[in-house]
Amino acid sequence: MENSVCVLDWRYGSKEMRELFQRATILKRMATVEVALLYALSKIGLVREEDVLVVQKNIDKINISRVEELEKKLGHDVMALTVHLAELSGESGKFIHFGATSYDIVDTANVLIFRDAINIIKKKLKNIIIILMEYAEKYQELVMVGRTHGQHALPITLGFKFANYVYEFTRSLERLNDTSKRLLKIKMAGAVGTMAGWKDKGLEIEKYVSEYLGLPPHEISTQIAPRDGYTELVSDLAILASQLDRFALEIRELMRPEILELAEGSAESRVGSSTMPHKENPVTAEKISGLAKVLRGFVISELENIPLWHERDLTNSSSERIILSHSFLIMDEMLESMEALLRNLRVYPENMRKNLELTKGLIMAESLMINLTLANVPRHIAHELVMKVSREAEREGKSLLEAALDNEEIVKILGKEKIIEALNPYSYLGEYKKLISRALSYAKNVIEQT
Amino acid sequence: MENSVCVLDWRYGSKEMRELFQRATILKRMATVEVALLYALSKIGLVREEDVLVVQKNIDKINISRVEELEKKLGHDVMALTVHLAELSGESGKFIHFGATSYDIVDTANVLIFRDAINIIKKKLKNIIIILMEYAEKYQELVMVGRTHGQHALPITLGFKFANYVYEFTRSLERLNDTSKRLLKIKMAGAVGTMAGWKDKGLEIEKYVSEYLGLPPHEISTQIAPRDGYTELVSDLAILASQLDRFALEIRELMRPEILELAEGSAESRVGSSTMPHKENPVTAEKISGLAKVLRGFVISELENIPLWHERDLTNSSSERIILSHSFLIMDEMLESMEALLRNLRVYPENMRKNLELTKGLIMAESLMINLTLANVPRHIAHELVMKVSREAEREGKSLLEAALDNEEIVKILGKEKIIEALNPYSYLGEYKKLISRALSYAKNVIEQT
Amino acid sequence: MENSVCVLDWRYGSKEMRELFQRATILKRMATVEVALLYALSKIGLVREEDVLVVQKNIDKINISRVEELEKKLGHDVMALTVHLAELSGESGKFIHFGATSYDIVDTANVLIFRDAINIIKKKLKNIIIILMEYAEKYQELVMVGRTHGQHALPITLGFKFANYVYEFTRSLERLNDTSKRLLKIKMAGAVGTMAGWKDKGLEIEKYVSEYLGLPPHEISTQIAPRDGYTELVSDLAILASQLDRFALEIRELMRPEILELAEGSAESRVGSSTMPHKENPVTAEKISGLAKVLRGFVISELENIPLWHERDLTNSSSERIILSHSFLIMDEMLESMEALLRNLRVYPENMRKNLELTKGLIMAESLMINLTLANVPRHIAHELVMKVSREAEREGKSLLEAALDNEEIVKILGKEKIIEALNPYSYLGEYKKLISRALSYAKNVIEQT
Amino acid sequence: MENSVCVLDWRYGSKEMRELFQRATILKRMATVEVALLYALSKIGLVREEDVLVVQKNIDKINISRVEELEKKLGHDVMALTVHLAELSGESGKFIHFGATSYDIVDTANVLIFRDAINIIKKKLKNIIIILMEYAEKYQELVMVGRTHGQHALPITLGFKFANYVYEFTRSLERLNDTSKRLLKIKMAGAVGTMAGWKDKGLEIEKYVSEYLGLPPHEISTQIAPRDGYTELVSDLAILASQLDRFALEIRELMRPEILELAEGSAESRVGSSTMPHKENPVTAEKISGLAKVLRGFVISELENIPLWHERDLTNSSSERIILSHSFLIMDEMLESMEALLRNLRVYPENMRKNLELTKGLIMAESLMINLTLANVPRHIAHELVMKVSREAEREGKSLLEAALDNEEIVKILGKEKIIEALNPYSYLGEYKKLISRALSYAKNVIEQT
Repeated sequence: MENSVCVLDWRYGSKEMRELFQRATILKRMATVEVALLYALSKIGLVREEDVLVVQKNIDKINISRVEELEKKLGHDVMALTVHLAELSGESGKFIHFGATSYDIVDTANVLIFRDAINIIKKKLKNIIIILMEYAEKYQELVMVGRTHGQHALPITLGFKFANYVYEFTRSLERLNDTSKRLLKIKMAGAVGTMAGWKDKGLEIEKYVSEYLGLPPHEISTQIAPRDGYTELVSDLAILASQLDRFALEIRELMRPEILELAEGSAESRVGSSTMPHKENPVTAEKISGLAKVLRGFVISELENIPLWHERDLTNSSSERIILSHSFLIMDEMLESMEALLRNLRVYPENMRKNLELTKGLIMAESLMINLTLANVPRHIAHELVMKVSREAEREGKSLLEAALDNEEIVKILGKEKIIEALNPYSYLGEYKKLISRALSYAKNVIEQT
Repeated sequence: MENSVCVLDWRYGSKEMRELFQRATILKRMATVEVALLYALSKIGLVREEDVLVVQKNIDKINISRVEELEKKLGHDVMALTVHLAELSGESGKFIHFGATSYDIVDTANVLIFRDAINIIKKKLKNIIIILMEYAEKYQELVMVGRTHGQHALPITLGFKFANYVYEFTRSLERLNDTSKRLLKIKMAGAVGTMAGWKDKGLEIEKYVSEYLGLPPHEISTQIAPRDGYTELVSDLAILASQLDRFALEIRELMRPEILELAEGSAESRVGSSTMPHKENPVTAEKISGLAKVLRGFVISELENIPLWHERDLTNSSSERIILSHSFLIMDEMLESMEALLRNLRVYPENMRKNLELTKGLIMAESLMINLTLANVPRHIAHELVMKVSREAEREGKSLLEAALDNEEIVKILGKEKIIEALNPYSYLGEYKKLISRALSYAKNVIEQT
Repeated sequence: MENSVCVLDWRYGSKEMRELFQRATILKRMATVEVALLYALSKIGLVREEDVLVVQKNIDKINISRVEELEKKLGHDVMALTVHLAELSGESGKFIHFGATSYDIVDTANVLIFRDAINIIKKKLKNIIIILMEYAEKYQELVMVGRTHGQHALPITLGFKFANYVYEFTRSLERLNDTSKRLLKIKMAGAVGTMAGWKDKGLEIEKYVSEYLGLPPHEISTQIAPRDGYTELVSDLAILASQLDRFALEIRELMRPEILELAEGSAESRVGSSTMPHKENPVTAEKISGLAKVLRGFVISELENIPLWHERDLTNSSSERIILSHSFLIMDEMLESMEALLRNLRVYPENMRKNLELTKGLIMAESLMINLTLANVPRHIAHELVMKVSREAEREGKSLLEAALDNEEIVKILGKEKIIEALNPYSYLGEYKKLISRALSYAKNVIEQT
Repeated sequence: MENSVCVLDWRYGSKEMRELFQRATILKRMATVEVALLYALSKIGLVREEDVLVVQKNIDKINISRVEELEKKLGHDVMALTVHLAELSGESGKFIHFGATSYDIVDTANVLIFRDAINIIKKKLKNIIIILMEYAEKYQELVMVGRTHGQHALPITLGFKFANYVYEFTRSLERLNDTSKRLLKIKMAGAVGTMAGWKDKGLEIEKYVSEYLGLPPHEISTQIAPRDGYTELVSDLAILASQLDRFALEIRELMRPEILELAEGSAESRVGSSTMPHKENPVTAEKISGLAKVLRGFVISELENIPLWHERDLTNSSSERIILSHSFLIMDEMLESMEALLRNLRVYPENMRKNLELTKGLIMAESLMINLTLANVPRHIAHELVMKVSREAEREGKSLLEAALDNEEIVKILGKEKIIEALNPYSYLGEYKKLISRALSYAKNVIEQT
């Protein structure tokens, strides 16, 4: 869209997700809820079944310009829609919106949209987890250095690294499942939540609307659904965004030319920089990290929508008009980007090996200490001794192996052979296989239950 | 504490919660994890059972000043503790911390503290829900006006209002249960999460630590437990805080002298204002609303702790030293305040009645419209008609009943009797009883399962 | 726009502000910066003056679809624009973008947009301040109760209340002026900020670009302008948003039917509620309060854009594509709404008088205390005495005047006449006139200097 | 403090800053404001000068336990203090707090503390800027690679890098100056801001209090000082924190063993890891990055304190009890850490040289392109050509120089000599010297004016 001010209208987000939040779709979802209410009214005998069908068919005839015109006149968006639906439906429409309040429609339409949007999110998240599971297995044995504080720590394998992301992302999937159970509930209870407009038929009507839409109701409500569920959703998305940010950061760091263990692949023709023709930048990963910042900010805005006045005030409305669509579309873009990032990922085993040896065995210091402790040296003494030898090796440009073999005390305790064995990074990987397998089993389980 | 800069050290928070986050307790919890590890090492035959007991007993002898001294020298807090424990334990202590990394201790100690802290939160939250359940029943029939946008909407009952808070708070209880299952997991996997220091005994050791502490392990981890769980916790607390804020806001508003339907009770001697002797202010409710703001901000800080580098960086450490204790202590103060607020709550039924009649029946406009629709007037025509009569009544200072009875069209359609019936607020409460009962059942269920 | 997902594309924001952030405008601004660079290159003799004019004219021929097409191919938005401009300009375009990096263009175009956007904001803010100044004078003598904690405190005048908002909003105007001086600076320094591409002509080129665009340069920069200035801007807007929120809250509260001192006016035909035909809701004020929540969240996102890597990373880009346009458009909508709210504001002097007397003189307790202190009663004794009398009056349904006249101690000290005088709210307004006048003078000064 | 739950009480923050926020100091500052008011009352003849001196002397006798006791009884902290001061001062104290409201005292004491705290912040920030200025000069000629997106971009010098931080931090200093002018104002205007308690003497009293404390008054106020100033302060601190975070990130990244151009120095005895004896971690830099997260969150909390009700509500109180002290103490710790980080910084020129050559001249691609353009090749054609040659060089493991010399087209256009010259990184530094000097001049100016 040429005149758009919002990049979510053209630059970011998939077609399927964007459609969910386009005005036409939102109006249709609201109309669907109105029809669900009519259906319920027909079940209790107030409306004829034919009339329900008539109105249902008119959903496709909704004219946005006419709704807009009516809203301008009436100053009320839901009212504009109901009037328009009634216009379209003639006599059949006279019970449209009967006994309902706007937010019976808005909040219930919201959860219809959330259901679809969450399904899209879950689908894409599952795809990502599945790719990562494949990678975890494929690279299970590819040894690389593990890094803490940006410093070399101990060896891991690339598969082990991926398996951690499998675990972390799957936790987000599980979290979305938990949240859905609190969030995906219809609200059909009238102006202040008492269902008074329907006299003694309220619970019955709610039941039929619930049946029509395939979603349970809130146990009770004010004029609107409680906003803790909305916030939980936005918080879930911001947590997932921050996890994706963490993965993107992994790539951005490991793609540094001095490290270059992993890299974001790119099409040949892409321009890295407008002025530095040689550059290939992790722009997809950077986009992911960038968008995460916006999602984190939205959590605050939705948290502030919980403390509304009494049976409701309207201050959630304007903010949610922005937060809800934007949160989902941003997450959608992030997931699409993440999948592309994964599919084009480049792996540089030779650099992993080179970097593993960069510190000349210093990363195996723990192993040496462990072996000393097992040979009866008190742990903190062993820690001190190894720290000394390590710094000595560093100072003198020796490998830790050399320095250890030069240290009489250590040789006396362990013997040369044991020292050599202890300092081999390729055999210091602990339970990596079983841990990978455990993480993958967990993921499989959650995916199956989702 | 006279020299304290933090109000959580003296002004806010209960003794039981404060103790959990005092330095001594934290050190003890970390020491307990070290003992759990020793226990595991004894189970695999590396350490003698007696030695475990020796170290376990030394937990009570930990000397903070000595730890502080060692930290100054070593520049590392966990290391300082293990050295101190080893000093205290002599020969028995030589396997302390064997194969572990600091965050095996810190993160596992954290969840031990979280478990207790969450239990305190849940206990207090349950008390609050139970009081609200009693109030929901007690005031089930006390009719008052429901308010939307701060304007009078339709009648509700005070019990119905309370039942909504029962529902909302119980959702937070349920949420804490869901979160606990992802959060309360030990992390005992060594420096980069591979358990390499324990060779092929890692999973066994983890199992025994898990058994000793009564908590399951993470499926896999880097050097630290994944921070999405921590963030989910802080988010849960911020959501609950915002719900308490909503209740506090309810009281603050309804205590306005022009409304005065509910009020925060206070001791006779309390000074409302230093210069306005007559004032009684909802200071407890205001404190709740105020503290909620701090908790909302913390969500951001913890969200930023998710995207850590590779197998970990340390930037979560300094921030969590503040966020974790402060989040729990602030929530604790909020819940204590909330319970006090509830127990001293004053209810003014006469003002509720007075306010209900303030708009001279205008709030019953919906009912009139509903009845017109049932009498075959198309809904939007009925809406327009009633809006006209309502504004007429307002302009002329008449009650809606008078205006309706003066309107020939309406009288013709409904008849006088039906109009009178339709405009009685005390019989326009819909399904309030069943909804209250449904909310209370849900709460009972969740409380039982907690 | 029918298919828009973002309400800023159609529902919120003025035409003039929206235009600034439409894709076409942004491209034109970037092209303007490219022309400014060409102008500078012509000044140092590298480009012919005619060529500058040729390219300048082509700005109006930019074709978004073509740019989009090129971006798809090149994967780089600024590059796409420069290639397109070069296409349009033939031989004249061959020095387009010479020596520059994308963010020379993006960041400088940003400040061109900011300059215009801030001017729009300031213009509307000044209008609001001016209306409030008129109201402050018009209602200078209209006495109403001042409220603290939602409780009645002491009398003020409506003009005094407005004058406070005059002061607060003017502080935001002043703040925007301060920020502008740090923010509105061009960045024209090449890829890593050294200007290397222009050899020894960098500073000269910067000077001419600066001259062409009428904005000074940053003293030094990395590849991009420092983000503290951007954050300061978003923070300013969020502060202003929160101040507008405060005013909106004032109206929403004072429009409660029990209070009804001020009210948001509305068109006759506007529908208050889709189901409650009588309702008139403060929907404009609620919109303002709602949108403030979104702006608060954006501060976090932009704060996170400060710690970028080394000479820059790209994570600010995706987030700023959303934050910048949205912050300005949201603020724009808020200011437009605020002006409408002010212009249609309804004032109910009779209710102010009624509410002033609601507590039967209790609000004059301070005055009584003051007079007792002046009559030599120690202040805290006076405080206690008046508190006692106040609570007594409340309990017995008497006015404070009656209770005071019934209190022998007080009568003995002050005498009846002085008591009556002390308890007259209409003469207990202190320095309100001079304070109003001082606030207005300050505002006039700042407006003049803006 | 052994039992402290807040690390700001013992771990983080300097003694001088901590003292400002200890309870005793806060009470003394509030007492000082009470004395300032007495002084003003003496100037208008209501109080004897001797009495002012008596009370002034009693400030040092304030007994926290007694204040606490009184607060428990009265439920009001400021009232407790004034009663205690009155107790201590006998007859001389009877006009203590006369005509004032609590927040005349609290808000004015706050700015007294802010003034001192901001001075500490500025002093430390200036020291940091001065060290950076020295470094900028010292390392003006030390060439290193500039990095964008984590990738190698173009050469810069270390001095140039530091000069950017000089500029950025100085902007924060300037910002604090601007904010101070809006923030450091007394509030002495009584309960609702009208000064009614002082009859027609209010402005005179304000003038004398202002004189006594050396700070101008707000032009007008409600019961409290407007919170936009407070928020601006917290926002300034969060911006500065994020800038320090950026510098810390620079060190953390450049200390990676694969890069190792800069490193955080450390004492010999510091333990890097409890299990990996070889490790030296950038823990100070990580602490800085960590604490920045907390400060960012606080901005939200203080922003929410702007929209208070009417003449004030109390919800700012509980939150500010935490936010204000914590924001300053966290910033204080960050600045102390930053200075230590700078003073112990290690520089590795040899690694800078090595890394500069890592990409085999690819970083000089821009220079080649520029020279081609100057030799009449249209810029985007030159861009394409150089991109091709760069990728070719990369693929074939050649240096860019070799690849360029092998490319007939390029050789034909530029000639070998020009190619060699164009690809020398040490002479492609543009205006670095003048830019450094410009940044330093700006800093000197702002420092002088601070």
